[in-house]
Amino acid sequence: MLEISRRGQAMPVSPFRKLAPYAELARQQGRIVYPLNIGQPDIETPPAALAAVRNADIRVLGYSHGAGTESYRHRLAAYYQRAGLPVVMEDIIVTTGGSEAILFALLTCLNPGDEIIIPEPFYGTYTAFSIAAGVNIVPVTARIDNGFALPPLANFERALTPRTRAILICNPSNPTGYVYRRAELESILGLCKAHSLYLISDEAYREFCYDAPYVSALELAGAEPNVVVVDTISKRYSACGARVGALVTLNKQVYVAAFRFAQMRVSPPGLGMLLAEAAAELPESYFDESKAEYQARRDLTVARLQAMPGVVCPRPGGAFYVLAHLPVDNTEAFGQWLLESFSYENQTLLLSPANGFYQTPGLGSQEVRLAYVINRTDLAAALDCLERALLAYPGRTEPPLTTTEVASAFTAPLLTQLQ
Amino acid sequence: MLEISRRGQAMPVSPFRKLAPYAELARQQGRIVYPLNIGQPDIETPPAALAAVRNADIRVLGYSHGAGTESYRHRLAAYYQRAGLPVVMEDIIVTTGGSEAILFALLTCLNPGDEIIIPEPFYGTYTAFSIAAGVNIVPVTARIDNGFALPPLANFERALTPRTRAILICNPSNPTGYVYRRAELESILGLCKAHSLYLISDEAYREFCYDAPYVSALELAGAEPNVVVVDTISKRYSACGARVGALVTLNKQVYVAAFRFAQMRVSPPGLGMLLAEAAAELPESYFDESKAEYQARRDLTVARLQAMPGVVCPRPGGAFYVLAHLPVDNTEAFGQWLLESFSYENQTLLLSPANGFYQTPGLGSQEVRLAYVINRTDLAAALDCLERALLAYPGRTEPPLTTTEVASAFTAPLLTQLQ
Repeated sequence: MLEISRRGQAMPVSPFRKLAPYAELARQQGRIVYPLNIGQPDIETPPAALAAVRNADIRVLGYSHGAGTESYRHRLAAYYQRAGLPVVMEDIIVTTGGSEAILFALLTCLNPGDEIIIPEPFYGTYTAFSIAAGVNIVPVTARIDNGFALPPLANFERALTPRTRAILICNPSNPTGYVYRRAELESILGLCKAHSLYLISDEAYREFCYDAPYVSALELAGAEPNVVVVDTISKRYSACGARVGALVTLNKQVYVAAFRFAQMRVSPPGLGMLLAEAAAELPESYFDESKAEYQARRDLTVARLQAMPGVVCPRPGGAFYVLAHLPVDNTEAFGQWLLESFSYENQTLLLSPANGFYQTPGLGSQEVRLAYVINRTDLAAALDCLERALLAYPGRTEPPLTTTEVASAFTAPLLTQLQ
Repeated sequence: MLEISRRGQAMPVSPFRKLAPYAELARQQGRIVYPLNIGQPDIETPPAALAAVRNADIRVLGYSHGAGTESYRHRLAAYYQRAGLPVVMEDIIVTTGGSEAILFALLTCLNPGDEIIIPEPFYGTYTAFSIAAGVNIVPVTARIDNGFALPPLANFERALTPRTRAILICNPSNPTGYVYRRAELESILGLCKAHSLYLISDEAYREFCYDAPYVSALELAGAEPNVVVVDTISKRYSACGARVGALVTLNKQVYVAAFRFAQMRVSPPGLGMLLAEAAAELPESYFDESKAEYQARRDLTVARLQAMPGVVCPRPGGAFYVLAHLPVDNTEAFGQWLLESFSYENQTLLLSPANGFYQTPGLGSQEVRLAYVINRTDLAAALDCLERALLAYPGRTEPPLTTTEVASAFTAPLLTQLQ
């Protein structure tokens, strides 16, 4: 009988899209659904970058070099250099989004059956890449009560086995928004050096740090030969659809092997590279506006969430996510209820239940990730919905609020329009 | 110690690029080098398709659906329907080039350690994909003396083991240009059905068949559930750099599993899809001109090669390659000699030694692949070079020609300008 491969069967449904069909139904019913579930920025793609594609004089849209066009790698190296990273063109392989960089890093650094340690909660799709690459994720749990800081080194050490080959961090973190401090990065690199592990650092959100300057793993003393950075222009320039990322490493052996995987698919997307090249030339000030906007949204989101009874919301230093504890029995059930049964002024919201970000069974069932990728007016409206929904949800787990508390929570009387 | 993974070490250097450094040197020395080594078409990308990218009104270049935009899948399904394939939008996953479709097909249909049978000579990069997916290629050798037709079914049957899960064909074939006849396709599908194997059919060159109409594996009776087609717009519309391909299957289980791999990398390239969508709307007549041009080149190439003493060149029915036997000791050495030591009127050529297309050791060492992807004037000049080079090459294996034969080969006296 024809069978699907075991890895094909094991591949998870994208955790970001589990609730999407319910959202679709809610929209068909005429409700406004605020999408706080995926990291698709609403900020406009830089017009100058789009213009570079429009104005390109192309007769034959041919393959590029397997590592990407020289002109783009040159500009990208300059971008990294401005950010203080000791990177030259020859350290960069342009990839098809950050996704491909992750896959190439796993294929290059780990054998099938090897283990990679990842602090959880982590970007759910790492699970899919690990299955595709045949490697096993060993989670080390970060805790909401210290804002999802790096777990103690002892916890990583306990997770080590003879099959451990790498540690993967996402910095700033998707889904927690936590930004690792230099001391944390140094300690984790030290552990990697002590045990001959690669440190794979996903730095997709590097430009979005609100409270302290960003530190790349590549800046650390001794980064070579352990560090492999995976990067993307998706969030940086609000250009997710361009599918342009990069694998950056100072380890020449890793580079050569990863480049062979890159040659396998001949070249990265040519039109996207034109866009990326123009974007890499934007002045530093380009980020001022988008960073200020995201920061204002973060402040709004955190302030509102922290004011909601029973909600625990650390203040993330970067990216555009918050990971919050909600006073509900189960955030997947709550998320579905929001879309199926809840409406406030004909609005509701779509959020990401956090169980998809944990590998340890049972964790995250009372947490959600919210992506603040919609404008502040809509964001405020979405948070209004969430506040009211938490009070109305039948599966609320915290002690019910007193009438006074509810009254003080709103200036207008609470009116949850259940369908 | 930090180590590169075994698969990273096993990944081959791209066979198309092995001689590239020598070509670079020859160019730096001022010689004209005709590139007949890679399948990068010189035909212009349809201006209307490029215009669609230029004229797109994009504010945020966001992720698309994981299977590609609906509008493009809709148009692509219509394209397949015009070609007589029973394909609807829901059977298509848009991929990042044909490359990603091959990888997804292997990951979905085969377990690590499983075997896939491929008639050799085959597209050398299949080896890289197989290493990445952890599967083993079992070659069944096609023979130059019958033009690289499908090997006898008995040879496939002898290659079967309990780990065999699929047969992969490339039709029209890269590197041989052979176009499988309907009866051949039916027989191989029959074998797949008898042994519960997937038939993965790489149809990248479907539009370039010169002597007979094209038959897709998806058109065959009973194609579902065995057939998985991998496709690309790279050659069809001379748009290799767009990186837009497709995985097409009527097997819903395969589709669902392959789609999860597609979700892993979120979406295919957005700008490339805009181009592909406009290209899919081009009238059938669009291909008339490019097909006529390729056919004229094929005729020229085959006629010239067949006229060269000691050369064996079947007449391929499709794609834009010929695979020929040359009267030399070793085509890799010959290819290098062409670039390092040969010049005719300050010109030489870059070809692909065919050993990179065979998995069985030793095969193909006297064969080369030539891609007729340069204009006819240059192509004729390249073939002039080849003709003279074969006479001058110190490693020629056929009996040396008589003075009369050499004189009759050229109207002008032979003057090989060795450097």
